[in-house]
Amino acid sequence: MSPFEPRISWVLERAATQYSDSEATVDLGTGERRTWAETLGRVRGLAAGLRDLGLDAGDRVGVLSLNSGRHLELWFAIPEAGLIMNDLNYRLAVEELAFIAKDSNIRVLFVDEAFLDAARQMQERCPELHTLVHMTPSESPAEATMAYEALAATAPRSFDDVGTGGDDVAAIFYTGGTTGLPKGAMLTHRNLTSNAFHIVASLALNHSDRYLHCGPQFHLADGAFAYGVTWMGGTHVFIPAFNPAETLGAFETERITCTLMVPTMINMALQAPEAATANLSSLRAILYGASPMPSALQRQAISTFGPVFAQAYGMTEASPLVSYMSAEAHVRGIAGEEPWAKRLESAGSPVVGVRVEIRREDGSVCEPGEAGEIYVQGPNIMVGYWNRDEETAHALVDGWYRSGDVAYADEGGYLFVVDRAKDMIISGGENIYTTEVENAIYAHPGVLEAAVFGIPHEEWGEMVHAEVVCKPGVALEGDALKEHCRQLIAGYKLPRSVNVRSHEEPLPKSGAGKILKRDLREPFWADRGRGVN
Amino acid sequence: MSPFEPRISWVLERAATQYSDSEATVDLGTGERRTWAETLGRVRGLAAGLRDLGLDAGDRVGVLSLNSGRHLELWFAIPEAGLIMNDLNYRLAVEELAFIAKDSNIRVLFVDEAFLDAARQMQERCPELHTLVHMTPSESPAEATMAYEALAATAPRSFDDVGTGGDDVAAIFYTGGTTGLPKGAMLTHRNLTSNAFHIVASLALNHSDRYLHCGPQFHLADGAFAYGVTWMGGTHVFIPAFNPAETLGAFETERITCTLMVPTMINMALQAPEAATANLSSLRAILYGASPMPSALQRQAISTFGPVFAQAYGMTEASPLVSYMSAEAHVRGIAGEEPWAKRLESAGSPVVGVRVEIRREDGSVCEPGEAGEIYVQGPNIMVGYWNRDEETAHALVDGWYRSGDVAYADEGGYLFVVDRAKDMIISGGENIYTTEVENAIYAHPGVLEAAVFGIPHEEWGEMVHAEVVCKPGVALEGDALKEHCRQLIAGYKLPRSVNVRSHEEPLPKSGAGKILKRDLREPFWADRGRGVN
Repeated sequence: MSPFEPRISWVLERAATQYSDSEATVDLGTGERRTWAETLGRVRGLAAGLRDLGLDAGDRVGVLSLNSGRHLELWFAIPEAGLIMNDLNYRLAVEELAFIAKDSNIRVLFVDEAFLDAARQMQERCPELHTLVHMTPSESPAEATMAYEALAATAPRSFDDVGTGGDDVAAIFYTGGTTGLPKGAMLTHRNLTSNAFHIVASLALNHSDRYLHCGPQFHLADGAFAYGVTWMGGTHVFIPAFNPAETLGAFETERITCTLMVPTMINMALQAPEAATANLSSLRAILYGASPMPSALQRQAISTFGPVFAQAYGMTEASPLVSYMSAEAHVRGIAGEEPWAKRLESAGSPVVGVRVEIRREDGSVCEPGEAGEIYVQGPNIMVGYWNRDEETAHALVDGWYRSGDVAYADEGGYLFVVDRAKDMIISGGENIYTTEVENAIYAHPGVLEAAVFGIPHEEWGEMVHAEVVCKPGVALEGDALKEHCRQLIAGYKLPRSVNVRSHEEPLPKSGAGKILKRDLREPFWADRGRGVN
Repeated sequence: MSPFEPRISWVLERAATQYSDSEATVDLGTGERRTWAETLGRVRGLAAGLRDLGLDAGDRVGVLSLNSGRHLELWFAIPEAGLIMNDLNYRLAVEELAFIAKDSNIRVLFVDEAFLDAARQMQERCPELHTLVHMTPSESPAEATMAYEALAATAPRSFDDVGTGGDDVAAIFYTGGTTGLPKGAMLTHRNLTSNAFHIVASLALNHSDRYLHCGPQFHLADGAFAYGVTWMGGTHVFIPAFNPAETLGAFETERITCTLMVPTMINMALQAPEAATANLSSLRAILYGASPMPSALQRQAISTFGPVFAQAYGMTEASPLVSYMSAEAHVRGIAGEEPWAKRLESAGSPVVGVRVEIRREDGSVCEPGEAGEIYVQGPNIMVGYWNRDEETAHALVDGWYRSGDVAYADEGGYLFVVDRAKDMIISGGENIYTTEVENAIYAHPGVLEAAVFGIPHEEWGEMVHAEVVCKPGVALEGDALKEHCRQLIAGYKLPRSVNVRSHEEPLPKSGAGKILKRDLREPFWADRGRGVN
């Protein structure tokens, strides 16, 4: 066994040594700019200050924040102190956030201005959450919170003796679960630093790169660039949250070279008036993920932004990158060159360092063109779900991760996702697990049966739709059902359309009594070529 | 512990899937061109055929060969079969080769046309070396050898059950030792695949790259590109051995993008008449190593080849890359911009994934500018020396490799090598351990004292020089001493100049009686600015 165990702290250490005076972070929300040397000093202060709060190695620390330079600092400070970061999806309802905080036993929560109220409501529900740290540039934090800046000014000390690194867990990211309860994927120092290599190799990141965080940092898709960009000594630019005008403005004024967006964001940026006039000449890679881009949108996007679109496919459990399709491949596809034209509908091919197999139900490997379940293997695969042994045992099999997604691979290993075993909707780049929505609907006393699935939507890709059967003698209204659900789940998960049926119009079922969602879905998708939904 | 254990076979698997019909190898020695799919088929055949020779997992297989596509195939086939590759320096004397073959107990040796005689002489001295495989395109191999092509045509079978990967040893590379005996650095699947990532990240290798093997493949400096270039699906081009005209010709006709050369080779290429007329527009990176390039040579090289020169520093024990200086940094240095002008004399800064510390004798870390011993840490560091527990214990300390080289680092982590604790001469890119040469000289019965060191040489950087004191009553001649040494050590290690002294002119010594080599060396280097030697 090699004695070498990678540590996330080494990523920042290299940048702060070799690129000490280079721009590390540009926070367009606060106007702050910091070098790598300054960032290292602050991160080391935060790490020491955090441990002074009475935390032990392996304790969980939450983050509930828009994008910012401080948000990035926490991605280094928390693992450096031997603690486990739990970066929360701020779009979740308070009940969901409190569930996660309790499930992972968050002791300290970093929260920015935007989510102070939510954090306080979480604290009411979670007695063990003893400290809120206010992520504000001000030295006077909100009432009953600690000042982030005071923590960052703590005298640094070494954590070399903490011994965390390698296969120790550095972060937990919660994802929706097929059982309806979110579950926390545990990612180690090795997982996250391996993924950084996979990103660097795929995008050829270098120290001249300027990456814009315009998608939410709490999503690993954007957040993971914390490590890849830093390792190469590049620059991070932040806008608090996506907005077409600010994104286009940042592209121009900050000479952005790389970013990650979902197709919905790209579409919104294209519609913005600024798109026609912004100077976008610095862009070299816009990575998009979550779903393929319709080719009409691709053509329009390339004509505005240039031949810079590359696709990524992955999942939290894979830290997250699994497969990739380069900008060059997109250009050949758009030009109609085969097999690239066909591959525009794919999710790319496995990146360097990651292996994929498509398997039959009996575990044997499919032939090219034959659909089966996507299995993933690599140093980037999580070590399990937090406190969910059963789900871990189901997901990690003989050194492989079972993704639940169904796909076929072509002869060149390009993955075509044809169905999601997890029954997940991707709407505007957000993953929505239908079971979670169905559970919320079933919580209404008048509901007999419910089925939730995605239907086509021009802007978001998919939209959440519910088919609901009332109990005998009950008359429900769609809007009332939505209001009911709003108390339980995040706004973005709410059904946008609801079809209410009487108990005399039951949902179609299989012989075993299982609701046949595919039959329900089919009429909505009948005139679409794509099998993904 | 993550269940994921990297295997070298996965590097080739990816190329053969995603770039199956792309050019994998172009062998300018034989005229053969093969795709990645063809290469995979041959490698799998070789792996199966090798095991059929009665070898068990972990057995050593030697290679003694000029550069070729077959040579590359062995870098995959031998580890794939669970065996350990021992690629031999063909410039060694037969006695040295036989020592290594015995030390590592080589059972099967792959040998090309050029070294059949040497291989037969080795076999006479090594009873356990039972099989020679002739690396010829012909189906009729030389007498008493097996045909490589017959082995490559073996029906493939899976070696997934061999279980070699991760921290299992994939290769042993022998390096000269300070004790005078070569020792074998054991490199694992993890070491070699990690270094591949370090190369890919540093050079931003991609599938369009065409790498020319013009330095010897048995040297890890060139050989390691087997993995980095293949993983990205690039192309390998081979000339049997360095020669300026063939190298320049290959640059042009094969549209080479990257290569590795030592300064001596670069200088020879610049002097060649073809340099003035060759179309070199495809070149984007010429990596040079072994020693810094004098700035006059750098200027001339950039004006002929373009701003493509990047430097690498490393050692076999680090698989081998440790530090790197980009082409961009060179251009800024040549333009006189500080600190880059000063850094032209450095060995670059630690690459992504590798850590370096400069330490004092007591183990504490030096300040910037303070010279100490170079320690290296990373997933690329060897697991030890083959059958040399004592030297392993000396070299591997608390997860760090002690290089023996003395350097200081500037504020940005750039390494300035000021002395080699190992007392090594680098002449024309070859490492020569002075102890080995001194041992050969001392083997002459007329020698009383000897000291070997490097003196400046225009073309080779350094040249081997010996100061020799005769026993009383003995008169030796320099040429006779060289002839004596030629029986014992490789030609490139022979002293090029010898100063013979009588016993009345002893060598200068310290109070403890140690020969003061530094005093002897000084007059030769007095008018040189560089401290390296």
